[in-house]
Amino acid sequence: MELNRTLDGLRLGGIRRYTNLAREAGGCIFLTLGEPEFDTPLPIRQAAKDALDQGVTHYTANAGDLSLQQAISQFEAEKRGLSYTPDEILITLGATEAIYSAMTAVLNPGDEVLIPTPAFSLYDTVARMAGAIPVPIATAQDGFQLTAQAVKQALTSKTKLLILNSPNNPTGVVYSRENLTQIASLITSRDMLVLCDDVYWGLGPCFTFTQFTDLKEKILAVQSFSKPYAMTGWRMGYLMAPASLLQRITVVHSHAVTCAPAMLQAACEEALRFDPACFAGSYEERRTYLLGRLQKMGLPCTAAQGAFYLFPQVSHLCDSDEALCVRLIHEAKVATVPGSVFGAPGYLRMSYCCSMEELKTAMDRLEPFLSTL
Amino acid sequence: MELNRTLDGLRLGGIRRYTNLAREAGGCIFLTLGEPEFDTPLPIRQAAKDALDQGVTHYTANAGDLSLQQAISQFEAEKRGLSYTPDEILITLGATEAIYSAMTAVLNPGDEVLIPTPAFSLYDTVARMAGAIPVPIATAQDGFQLTAQAVKQALTSKTKLLILNSPNNPTGVVYSRENLTQIASLITSRDMLVLCDDVYWGLGPCFTFTQFTDLKEKILAVQSFSKPYAMTGWRMGYLMAPASLLQRITVVHSHAVTCAPAMLQAACEEALRFDPACFAGSYEERRTYLLGRLQKMGLPCTAAQGAFYLFPQVSHLCDSDEALCVRLIHEAKVATVPGSVFGAPGYLRMSYCCSMEELKTAMDRLEPFLSTL
Repeated sequence: MELNRTLDGLRLGGIRRYTNLAREAGGCIFLTLGEPEFDTPLPIRQAAKDALDQGVTHYTANAGDLSLQQAISQFEAEKRGLSYTPDEILITLGATEAIYSAMTAVLNPGDEVLIPTPAFSLYDTVARMAGAIPVPIATAQDGFQLTAQAVKQALTSKTKLLILNSPNNPTGVVYSRENLTQIASLITSRDMLVLCDDVYWGLGPCFTFTQFTDLKEKILAVQSFSKPYAMTGWRMGYLMAPASLLQRITVVHSHAVTCAPAMLQAACEEALRFDPACFAGSYEERRTYLLGRLQKMGLPCTAAQGAFYLFPQVSHLCDSDEALCVRLIHEAKVATVPGSVFGAPGYLRMSYCCSMEELKTAMDRLEPFLSTL
Repeated sequence: MELNRTLDGLRLGGIRRYTNLAREAGGCIFLTLGEPEFDTPLPIRQAAKDALDQGVTHYTANAGDLSLQQAISQFEAEKRGLSYTPDEILITLGATEAIYSAMTAVLNPGDEVLIPTPAFSLYDTVARMAGAIPVPIATAQDGFQLTAQAVKQALTSKTKLLILNSPNNPTGVVYSRENLTQIASLITSRDMLVLCDDVYWGLGPCFTFTQFTDLKEKILAVQSFSKPYAMTGWRMGYLMAPASLLQRITVVHSHAVTCAPAMLQAACEEALRFDPACFAGSYEERRTYLLGRLQKMGLPCTAAQGAFYLFPQVSHLCDSDEALCVRLIHEAKVATVPGSVFGAPGYLRMSYCCSMEELKTAMDRLEPFLSTL
């Protein structure tokens, strides 16, 4: 029997694959998952417990609980100057579902999706599942910045969607306001959409493409509670888009998941009142430390400004970043993710959302191993 | 811009539409939603609170937490004699996501999906989203039983999937073991799959097609925590299938939602230890009462044995079940769902998961109104 052909060759994300490999090997320090090592702050957990006590165990509206939609509307107005009414906000199962539902709702087979690369593999996979064509835009030559020139060269009459992810996974780079402004000019008159995956914004506020409010009709804005509030396991996020677009996306959402869990939605209101600055400070300290160690080892690495990743180059040390990753797991007991997983061979992604002590130990293991290569 | 064409004409489910209409009208008794009016039992809520206290706030494996998979494996072996290993069980965001991910993973454009009708509209919509062709099989003439003869007449070389939902939504009918046995014989040698949506099983154990264990390779078995444990707002369910099929379905699941919320998965283990007999007893009492009242009003209605719906015929009272529903909302202040929403005009679906008092009031309002028609 021939099952859904668009899934042929697709498999679970590479980040999970290398994490699982390291689990099997044992004794590794994990620099693989993009997951805060902190547990969710107590006030947010308490809010979920209160909701459970109050019997918040029933369906909400498909698009989400109005009270949370209102809180997000206000939060985004205050923090980023965005203007989305509650009916322009869809509560999703994490940013993943926001990206999945949005891309699935807008893409037709044959549409081209521009993906600045290296990139989180989800965009590529979901585009393929929709029968669309992922078009990578290489950014390495520009220090992982996305330039209007690079976007321009990739545009065709079939271009339906541009993905923007800043602060970026896996490079940690924040797209400059100048570059974003030029990209905005470039696409303003074109019949296309821009998906802004801003999930790392909360850990270090920066200018995001979403803030070009005159382009609102073209923007699908994705946010997540996972990264700023250490809520990865809650699977809560949201999508902001003009109502007409959001209605179509809600059709996918409602048939895929019905609605987000009611008691978790209630707790997300509390999350919006939590200041993630304490987390952001820890990440900055670790980033500075990690960057220093990598430079001392002679690994070229773009100085990142956001997210919680660094993306050092290793192409001078090995023929295959994937083989190097496997050796690092087994011989150095340090788990990283090869750049190939993000469409950029010759690099390693190192997540620094582990403790400072683990990070030190990881570097102390990495340094002597690399010197043997 | 042309958005995803497979969504053209699709909209939010009709159940929600009539519920919202009644909300706007005000003062209605709701017999619309298939949602237990009970809050989730306290021990299950406590288990979620304990998980939150213990910091169960991080990602689980895409397919779910092994501990819950093991608990489900054991539960299904004990209760239904099923034999699914933990790696044959996917933890999903309710039965909705199980159905969505399973159908999306197996269907190609042009495949035919047999849907015994009346039916929950999700099957039809998700089939269309995959570009597949829904083929309704009318069951009204057989007292809403599905016969092998009816299935046989609908089979073609393009048939990829048969949907079975027993106890049935919206009719409450339980497919007879004899019919299921004949259907099993019919399809045993065919290259097709059967999706068994058994979500009402927990409220009244009965023989399910899933229990034809020699057909396991063909079966996609869907379950939900929503109905038996009054957990609709938790969005928790699971899918059981042979590992090779489940792996492909997990690719859809992992790219659509990553994984189910960690702390809710922990609580589901407690749910499996809860005996829903107390709920089942209440529903049986209300079903008997409702059936009696409907018969007294002269509404023909198949005597249901499961789920929490009755599906009386009203075609002799009106030209349009949809128009009648709207009148019932505005004039009788009773909200029901027209059969048209389930592909069977001329009927009303009445959910009896409200209190006995509300049910009595609803019937006391309905009776005089119907006598004026």
